[in-house]
Amino acid sequence: MELDLIRRLSQPADTKVILCVLDGLGGMPGPRGRTELEEARTTHLDRLVSDGCVGRTLPVGYGITPGSGPGHMALFGYDPLAFEIGRGALESTGIGFEIGPDDITARGNLCTLDTEGRITDRRAGRLPTEQTRAICEQLQTITLPGVETFVQVVQDQRFILVLRGPGLSDQITETDPQREGVPPIVCSAITPDGDRIAALVREWVTRATAMLAAQERANGVLLRGWSGRPKVPPFPELWKLRAAAVTVYPMYRGVARLVGMDALDGGHDIHEQIAAIRAHWDEYDFFFLHYKYTDSAGEDGDFRRKCDAIEAFDQAVPELVALKPDVLVVTGDHSTPALMAAHSFHPVPVLVWGQNVRRDHLHHFNEVSAREGELGMFPAKEVLPIAFGHAGRLAKFGA
Amino acid sequence: MELDLIRRLSQPADTKVILCVLDGLGGMPGPRGRTELEEARTTHLDRLVSDGCVGRTLPVGYGITPGSGPGHMALFGYDPLAFEIGRGALESTGIGFEIGPDDITARGNLCTLDTEGRITDRRAGRLPTEQTRAICEQLQTITLPGVETFVQVVQDQRFILVLRGPGLSDQITETDPQREGVPPIVCSAITPDGDRIAALVREWVTRATAMLAAQERANGVLLRGWSGRPKVPPFPELWKLRAAAVTVYPMYRGVARLVGMDALDGGHDIHEQIAAIRAHWDEYDFFFLHYKYTDSAGEDGDFRRKCDAIEAFDQAVPELVALKPDVLVVTGDHSTPALMAAHSFHPVPVLVWGQNVRRDHLHHFNEVSAREGELGMFPAKEVLPIAFGHAGRLAKFGA
Repeated sequence: MELDLIRRLSQPADTKVILCVLDGLGGMPGPRGRTELEEARTTHLDRLVSDGCVGRTLPVGYGITPGSGPGHMALFGYDPLAFEIGRGALESTGIGFEIGPDDITARGNLCTLDTEGRITDRRAGRLPTEQTRAICEQLQTITLPGVETFVQVVQDQRFILVLRGPGLSDQITETDPQREGVPPIVCSAITPDGDRIAALVREWVTRATAMLAAQERANGVLLRGWSGRPKVPPFPELWKLRAAAVTVYPMYRGVARLVGMDALDGGHDIHEQIAAIRAHWDEYDFFFLHYKYTDSAGEDGDFRRKCDAIEAFDQAVPELVALKPDVLVVTGDHSTPALMAAHSFHPVPVLVWGQNVRRDHLHHFNEVSAREGELGMFPAKEVLPIAFGHAGRLAKFGA
Repeated sequence: MELDLIRRLSQPADTKVILCVLDGLGGMPGPRGRTELEEARTTHLDRLVSDGCVGRTLPVGYGITPGSGPGHMALFGYDPLAFEIGRGALESTGIGFEIGPDDITARGNLCTLDTEGRITDRRAGRLPTEQTRAICEQLQTITLPGVETFVQVVQDQRFILVLRGPGLSDQITETDPQREGVPPIVCSAITPDGDRIAALVREWVTRATAMLAAQERANGVLLRGWSGRPKVPPFPELWKLRAAAVTVYPMYRGVARLVGMDALDGGHDIHEQIAAIRAHWDEYDFFFLHYKYTDSAGEDGDFRRKCDAIEAFDQAVPELVALKPDVLVVTGDHSTPALMAAHSFHPVPVLVWGQNVRRDHLHHFNEVSAREGELGMFPAKEVLPIAFGHAGRLAKFGA
């Protein structure tokens, strides 16, 4: 649905909607010819299917493998091709950094360079967060002419660099070659308006590398995902509701905050996340719950651990149902088949449970049954229009 | 299909197509876990499915509940988001009023006002049509400076008001607050070009209210759905054929006439409608048959009566088949599940029977079998391209 139409048809209602995103949910048949979802015991999800309906989403487009940003933007109802969010902006927002209108952000990695300046480890041996934090404090002391800089730790060897100043452009090259054995790329402008910031970044990298020369592992920096503050119509205004995100990982909190959701403290696991929803039940109409472990296991190529992650979520489903949401959606932002050990382009199963659901007499939640579901196959950006339609939050179109 | 492409590919042929629209056809599982279509005995429709193929349409978009106007525009092949038709234009055309290029129309209700001018009954106790007609004749005597006015009865307490004059705008507020206990809204301009007509409407309302002061029930007027003549590329030109509508209810005749179909006298029931098609068989290539009672029963929340309405239509199917159409389509303009007692966003079953059909080995016409059908799920505006494709009325695209 186009955003203008959402703005026009959305209406307040006395209903609650929960969107559960099991990251990288979709899979592929593993050793026994069954996908992770088919293999996992999912008693509670299956019960939701019996009372609800299923289908499959296409996150970005046919054959396209989505990153986490676009995958989530689509699930939030935004066309991921129209609203691209740079990795820098995503990471920055994820750690609670408020990106200003004059800011250009990058995602940084501390890395290990050899004596010739070639990268030997893009992640500096996954430097512990606390050591990265100390190094960021050092790097924060670097000053550049005419701009402010911010350097903040994210996790492990990852940090963000923000340049703040009028007229800065994000049209500059990344310095991370995304492979080892070569030196970092020297930052340069992609379009002429990037000339000034490219020079500033080159100076910053030179001084940072000099400052880190004595470090054993973290003696270099890699920067990528240059991006300013994205312009996204705020989710709560579009839908005329109060929206909260309950995540454990910063990046997903980041994308939720970028679209204007409040971020609740999600604690450390799915049970604490659901407890947070319960504690704030009356304050919000919509809750976005992000569950990471399906994707982590998939990325690691660990079929059985992905099944376990699915089962662990399944065990928490009764706690979600006990909240009595009017509409509950369970889906993923993309597929991460353990067989591929990576994000993939495959469609993603989705289930919708709650009021006004046309049941489809299916009883299992997996890629195979989803093919026969009531909801068919549809773009992921239609997940929320479908959910809010069921929840009575979309007015009739036309007389 | 885009209209430009229709215009380019459509070709005359010696084939006849009938489109049957069972209003609000789609349903939801009722008391026995089966939808209205599953519960109804549909021997003849089921036979069409055995020899034909099925699928599901999405009238406007995911999660969007269509009104009757957009629902029908989509079935006529027009993008309902691109071609919106105001309620005033719809009602006016429905009673045979020919909207001119300088006309602005409104749908009116006679209503009951208390001594303080507050609405106590938005429908004046559903005033009988004949009394409304007499009042309209009175209201027709009101004259306004520089414009012509037309006041005509529709049905019960409903009427149309048309203002005819150069440069009038439809950018004015409705006077119907759509609730009781408050006075009618005073008409005002939404954009500056509405200033003049807003003043005229205020004057008309003042004089109408004075004129009706002595009426017991119908002592007020409510106006809504301001709209001029919609600009729609004529259906017969687009498709290079002669098209006729056979409806019992004025509104559906209205939307058919708006797109340029001829309106035949549809009589009073489905059998008279089919007789009308038979009587004009040689004069037209395409017939649109509208059947209202599925929707009325659904709107009333009467599951069994909706089943009965489906069965009554089913009984008439042999009469349709006896006409030997080359392609026969049966579908709905939207869903109206008795369970919701309202239009809904759910997809709508569709069946296509006739020449060149790729049978899908299904044998029942309902929401469940339609999920597995040959036609899949598709936008309702593609129903006629599919039908006319089967009927040999679309030329090959490219060499």
